[in-house]
Amino acid sequence: MAFGWIDEQAALRRRAGLVRSLRPRPADSPLLDLASNDYLGLARHPEVTEGAAEAARTWGAGATGSRLVTGTTGLHAELERELAAFCGFEAALVFSSGYAANLAAVTALAPHGSLVISDAGNHASLIDGCRLARGATQVVAHADPEAVAKALQTHDGPAVAVSDTVFSVDGDAAPLAALAEACRAHGAGLVVDDAHGLGVLGDGGRGAPQAAGLAGAGDVVVTVTLSKSLGAQGGAVLGPARVIDHLVNTARTFIFDTGLAPAPAGAALAALRLLRREPGRAARAREVAAELHARLTGAGLEAVRPDAAVVSVRAPSPEAAVRWAADCRTAGLAVGCFRPPSVPDGISRLRLTARADLSGDQIERAVRVIGDTRP
Amino acid sequence: MAFGWIDEQAALRRRAGLVRSLRPRPADSPLLDLASNDYLGLARHPEVTEGAAEAARTWGAGATGSRLVTGTTGLHAELERELAAFCGFEAALVFSSGYAANLAAVTALAPHGSLVISDAGNHASLIDGCRLARGATQVVAHADPEAVAKALQTHDGPAVAVSDTVFSVDGDAAPLAALAEACRAHGAGLVVDDAHGLGVLGDGGRGAPQAAGLAGAGDVVVTVTLSKSLGAQGGAVLGPARVIDHLVNTARTFIFDTGLAPAPAGAALAALRLLRREPGRAARAREVAAELHARLTGAGLEAVRPDAAVVSVRAPSPEAAVRWAADCRTAGLAVGCFRPPSVPDGISRLRLTARADLSGDQIERAVRVIGDTRP
Repeated sequence: MAFGWIDEQAALRRRAGLVRSLRPRPADSPLLDLASNDYLGLARHPEVTEGAAEAARTWGAGATGSRLVTGTTGLHAELERELAAFCGFEAALVFSSGYAANLAAVTALAPHGSLVISDAGNHASLIDGCRLARGATQVVAHADPEAVAKALQTHDGPAVAVSDTVFSVDGDAAPLAALAEACRAHGAGLVVDDAHGLGVLGDGGRGAPQAAGLAGAGDVVVTVTLSKSLGAQGGAVLGPARVIDHLVNTARTFIFDTGLAPAPAGAALAALRLLRREPGRAARAREVAAELHARLTGAGLEAVRPDAAVVSVRAPSPEAAVRWAADCRTAGLAVGCFRPPSVPDGISRLRLTARADLSGDQIERAVRVIGDTRP
Repeated sequence: MAFGWIDEQAALRRRAGLVRSLRPRPADSPLLDLASNDYLGLARHPEVTEGAAEAARTWGAGATGSRLVTGTTGLHAELERELAAFCGFEAALVFSSGYAANLAAVTALAPHGSLVISDAGNHASLIDGCRLARGATQVVAHADPEAVAKALQTHDGPAVAVSDTVFSVDGDAAPLAALAEACRAHGAGLVVDDAHGLGVLGDGGRGAPQAAGLAGAGDVVVTVTLSKSLGAQGGAVLGPARVIDHLVNTARTFIFDTGLAPAPAGAALAALRLLRREPGRAARAREVAAELHARLTGAGLEAVRPDAAVVSVRAPSPEAAVRWAADCRTAGLAVGCFRPPSVPDGISRLRLTARADLSGDQIERAVRVIGDTRP
């Protein structure tokens, strides 16, 4: 019978303690949230939700078509101009998700005969981009510019190195300046996903590429998401105008996808303007992360020093991680639980996210609960 | 220099007359719209835009995380329940786009050692799903159940046939009942993308699978989009609960993507409820398409008989199609212009979409403009 093999896989998952299920949250959850990617606390900010509501009323509930047919509104153009200007790049192109933006950037910049050098810790969407690209992919060691340089030495023709700027699982940062140098020495491009950097790193949250002195570089392309620090939905590619123009003409997830709905576009624009007006939010998110880390290690927990706003705490096993997260939840704290197959190294952990709007009391409470429930 | 090859490709595009560029539309466009996929005219309906605004205010501007962490709200669960019930399937799973839903359905249902049989006219997102799948893909002739049966005969192990229900470019329908029969005879599953069927075909817009008697079938999986008839954004997979559960556990574009923002989820739910209350909208969209087709062929134009709400009109060349669409626009009419590489057969055409809310006068005016500007 069709799909019969699915039941065998489900049984294997159950035996391995790796079953996932959805848990719908209420509109006003009583839990203290250290699990979302709402780094600046803007998803519920009245200016941002009103930006969504106003956009839906003015522009409609949907974009009504693909970007090249009817799906580009004046709002999309405005968001693209302001995003590019904020991050210091010539042009930007908005997608319905960061996943779609990554698929577009990698596939469009890795033509037949090219080489894509991909960090071993890259996000699933970058990996899928490599799989869909016409070029050949070489996976290199995590955060290793020398490995990138070595891979480039043996290749003739177009090449790009692809990396997250901040890795989602452990919250560690890529060595961007050294990666750019290695690429430049070989005439290669650098494509970086700043999903966890925008709004947190750089001057006033301008992102990891700006912090590394790469804003506006002609050989650097940045992807971002509108669904983390900006509290909305969608993604964007930033870079030289000719690269953006190339994406408009060739990227399948741009050409064949309905444009981003006006509401999340309006929300992201409102969040971006709020961040420009209140640049201290970015530094505050980093401070909260540093404080979380210091208190967790002070309590004897094994936590990775955060380069942005993600704090990762090791758990002894997938089962222990699941139980730990559940015990935190019972005690009123929402934390992320990352385990195989969603972690590149097979190590399960709690994933905590610092939010700029967490108070000192909330941080203290979170650390106490995590310590009290440790396996 | 990095990205130097892009300029060569851009020059080739210019010489071939295939350059695409974005044209942001204003909030109140004076153009008569026969280009969008807003088949039921719901994207600007006050109940639908208010559904978006209310959801943003109640649930926030973004989902704040992936569906398995913080990105599933009660609103997502409600939308999934009502979508599944409306289309007659056991369960549904909402994605940030129809593109993501298609990548998920195809990759998750085509494991290593399986066979995916893909219609030659399938949408880019289904094709990318095949490219990402671990199984082998065999492309078969367009709308040919015998070719599917033949491909299945020589394969042992899991298999799925994959097809659009209504093909976007020409608006023709797939022979769903015959495809399902061919699959069943060989124990294979059938995955169909009802992006252009939901809201237009079936009883009260329940979609092409319902019209073909396949609603609720244990061996059929349906993908839909929330961005066409429902006027919002997002996509969904509908099917047996165990298939949906399998997607929750394995589909990368589900696990590693931020959940759909509340505003488009709320808009889609409002549109769905409106369609249940006013089921005549679906039949009206089909009537408008039939009338458009009759008048266009009456005027001597070469138009494909529509099976849903898309009416395709052949153009002699890409350049002529672009000029024709531009002349329509000058005369106040927005039409789609499809040309290589976005058309599977290399034939350029105008693509018109029937909307349930087009008046007789508007249809007459559209046909007059298209006839007057013909190349």
